[in-house]
Amino acid sequence: MSEEKKLTPRSKDFSEWYNDVIMRAELADYSPVRGCMVIRPRGYRIWELMQQALDGMFKETGHENAYFPLFIPQHFLAKEADHVEGFAPQLAVVTHGGGKELEEPLIVRPTSETIIYSMLAKWIQSWRDLPLLINQWANVVRWELRTRLFLRTTEFLWQEGHTAHATDQEAEQEAQMILRLYRRFMEEWMAMPVLTGRKTDSERFADALRTYACEALMQDNRALQAGTSHNLGQNFAKAFDVTFQTADGGLDHVWSTSWGVSTRMIGGLIMTHGDDAGMVCPPRLAQWQVVLVPIYKTDEERAATFEAAQRITRELKQAGIRAYADLREGLKPGAKYFEWEMRGAPLRLELGPRDLANNSAMMARRSGGKKEPLPLDGLAARLTVELEAMQRSLFDAALARREANSIRGATKAVLLEKMAGDGGGGFVYGGYCGSPTCEAEIKQQTKATVRVLPDEEFRSPTTPERCLWCDSPSVTEAVWAKAY
Amino acid sequence: MSEEKKLTPRSKDFSEWYNDVIMRAELADYSPVRGCMVIRPRGYRIWELMQQALDGMFKETGHENAYFPLFIPQHFLAKEADHVEGFAPQLAVVTHGGGKELEEPLIVRPTSETIIYSMLAKWIQSWRDLPLLINQWANVVRWELRTRLFLRTTEFLWQEGHTAHATDQEAEQEAQMILRLYRRFMEEWMAMPVLTGRKTDSERFADALRTYACEALMQDNRALQAGTSHNLGQNFAKAFDVTFQTADGGLDHVWSTSWGVSTRMIGGLIMTHGDDAGMVCPPRLAQWQVVLVPIYKTDEERAATFEAAQRITRELKQAGIRAYADLREGLKPGAKYFEWEMRGAPLRLELGPRDLANNSAMMARRSGGKKEPLPLDGLAARLTVELEAMQRSLFDAALARREANSIRGATKAVLLEKMAGDGGGGFVYGGYCGSPTCEAEIKQQTKATVRVLPDEEFRSPTTPERCLWCDSPSVTEAVWAKAY
Repeated sequence: MSEEKKLTPRSKDFSEWYNDVIMRAELADYSPVRGCMVIRPRGYRIWELMQQALDGMFKETGHENAYFPLFIPQHFLAKEADHVEGFAPQLAVVTHGGGKELEEPLIVRPTSETIIYSMLAKWIQSWRDLPLLINQWANVVRWELRTRLFLRTTEFLWQEGHTAHATDQEAEQEAQMILRLYRRFMEEWMAMPVLTGRKTDSERFADALRTYACEALMQDNRALQAGTSHNLGQNFAKAFDVTFQTADGGLDHVWSTSWGVSTRMIGGLIMTHGDDAGMVCPPRLAQWQVVLVPIYKTDEERAATFEAAQRITRELKQAGIRAYADLREGLKPGAKYFEWEMRGAPLRLELGPRDLANNSAMMARRSGGKKEPLPLDGLAARLTVELEAMQRSLFDAALARREANSIRGATKAVLLEKMAGDGGGGFVYGGYCGSPTCEAEIKQQTKATVRVLPDEEFRSPTTPERCLWCDSPSVTEAVWAKAY
Repeated sequence: MSEEKKLTPRSKDFSEWYNDVIMRAELADYSPVRGCMVIRPRGYRIWELMQQALDGMFKETGHENAYFPLFIPQHFLAKEADHVEGFAPQLAVVTHGGGKELEEPLIVRPTSETIIYSMLAKWIQSWRDLPLLINQWANVVRWELRTRLFLRTTEFLWQEGHTAHATDQEAEQEAQMILRLYRRFMEEWMAMPVLTGRKTDSERFADALRTYACEALMQDNRALQAGTSHNLGQNFAKAFDVTFQTADGGLDHVWSTSWGVSTRMIGGLIMTHGDDAGMVCPPRLAQWQVVLVPIYKTDEERAATFEAAQRITRELKQAGIRAYADLREGLKPGAKYFEWEMRGAPLRLELGPRDLANNSAMMARRSGGKKEPLPLDGLAARLTVELEAMQRSLFDAALARREANSIRGATKAVLLEKMAGDGGGGFVYGGYCGSPTCEAEIKQQTKATVRVLPDEEFRSPTTPERCLWCDSPSVTEAVWAKAY
């Protein structure tokens, strides 16, 4: 744990750096089950803080949590044709239970639309029961051949929202409201700027009318799809016969949405802010926002600095700051600094005898810059300001990096140039004719896909007039990138 | 939802009453997957409140949350002989993944000791890594032939704590500390009194040195095992070779514990406090602690009572009370009262024009008694006191009921009489020789089992001298009951 072994630098091998950070910061570990990961306490704490924030936002917007079975009868998946086709290669199948072969195999949920709609059919009778706004925090399983910690694992943790509405319009509003909610969470909590917009048909959830997504740009200039929100129209309602009596006495199928974000976001957090010293955690999602390290030589100094570290930790906690005093003995201060930098703790306070004599502590910011002595009087207020400033500055830096790696009004030549080679990437904005042929050709030749047809606030001042690939008239602006 | 159909009375059929309450209060529902339930939002909210309280208690005592894979390689279970024997008939087995038959089947976790110990073997090197205190909130699967909502389902939600220690003594202290923590949660939050104590060998977790349990007495006089805590000794450490370097340079296997409570507790909550009008929810676990119902005839009265209900709800929320204004139109106040009684909301405030004119509201307690007008001034403070009083009085009533249905110093004749017939039950304290033969005979003839060898604070002033069954010398006092 305390060996001061340097990480693989990002510039040398980003992917190895990413794995190194996760292992060395003890965020997660490989498990003996192929494709499944173990989320260790330091990683899980980030997930808990994410959950708390998101759950509050879901509840504020009227959603309630529920829990549906892990298992789905096999024939349910076949009820929605696109659904079974999309997931068939990824399913884990339970064939035996209680010592016997099952009459019908059970699927371990890859997502819960089918089991949920079978229940909605029972619960929804009239327009008075609508909208029905449900969320579930759960584990899901999608068999993966090539896995990466947090980004793509056979089992992962997520939330899946499922809502039913009386009209198409309400479902559309919900899907878009959730997209904005996700964006707000990612920007305000993760300090990770995202583009939002609609997916093309080839990239949308097969069962959806429209899929919306949040896309972030990682430090290696590849895009990460960090959350999706689907307007499902009446597809599942029809497959599971979920009808309701309308206010004027008619009968209609409900209109529905589903949306989700997962532990994949932790991967996004690492690849957005991390540096060659390890994880950099935005203060709002940090297990410990301030870590105190006592510095001493004599027993007397040890007693005084420990006492001060504990007292200050208590005071900071009372002020709502997640503070931790690292009082391990037999470990030098430098080794502790190294560890807490690896783990991404936003602020460090060094407390030595000379600091105490001056009634101050030396503050170091994980995001860089000179150390600074802070008076102990009014410390909590000052650190609160520091943490807020760091939260903002991490976002600003990530935004600046994204914009520096985005290009607008791109031509075919620019797209080819930007995507060339393993190091190529970034967000490339350009005109798009809407043809799946162009989309497929671009993907084949550059590995780039349309990440989104951007929402209004992300569009270029003037929409490009021609498709950057085939030069036919453009129907929309699109953003291409190589994606995780 | 609003049909005012009466519940089956408890006295007529307790089991049917129980199912009725769950369905009518919309706590849970049967699912299309055999043995699995759906936890509906009103039931899940109780679970969330339970989780919050317990999670805080676990963290205060130094535990951290983590997440381990859902799947366990089949050969892991065989590493601990008693473990595989205990769980074999209850396993769900994944044989196919990603469209192919697996080389080795995967077990859906019935509990996570094996997968967790395989990781601990990697993480623990030295005494400095101990104690390691981990908890996991997760779903687990145990195939059940006869299921009951919340009490026994094939899939259920729980927390499972897993800790590793340097000494036998520390592991024992942890197992007992958690037992006390569970008791505190059940008594202070669920208002459900429990006996604590040790299990006999026939009732303990097969892999444990010692199993401790919390046992509550339901209104039908049957016992519910509401939580267990196991001292696992070195059994799993040896099976998975989890060793550590001791402080004096030696090598030893870790000593470990595991402990869990589950959604079963929601069943206990219902069967402890419910009455013939439905659920009675202790305030600390109630989704809505206070429900406001406006009463009006004219449009003017409607506007005034709605405005007041909303304003008061805001004020109560600011004071930390979970308050809800039921502003549904087209539903009479009486129908709303009926519903909220079914759902167990602790306090109801009725707001009519006359109440408003008097600057007051009419309060009704779910636990019974006369309605009472309360001045709106100082309402939040008054309701806070009411809620605390109800929390206490529910506990007191449950404790009085349990004690009225407990008998100490029982003879064989008394045990037989108390357990006779379907209606028989209660806690029967008596001397026990410690022989599995007596235990088995008693179970066969009365259906009663030893729930616990009670902890000191629950023991009778003098330990009975003879076994109530065989009349040999008693080695301990035991508590018998018929159990869920």
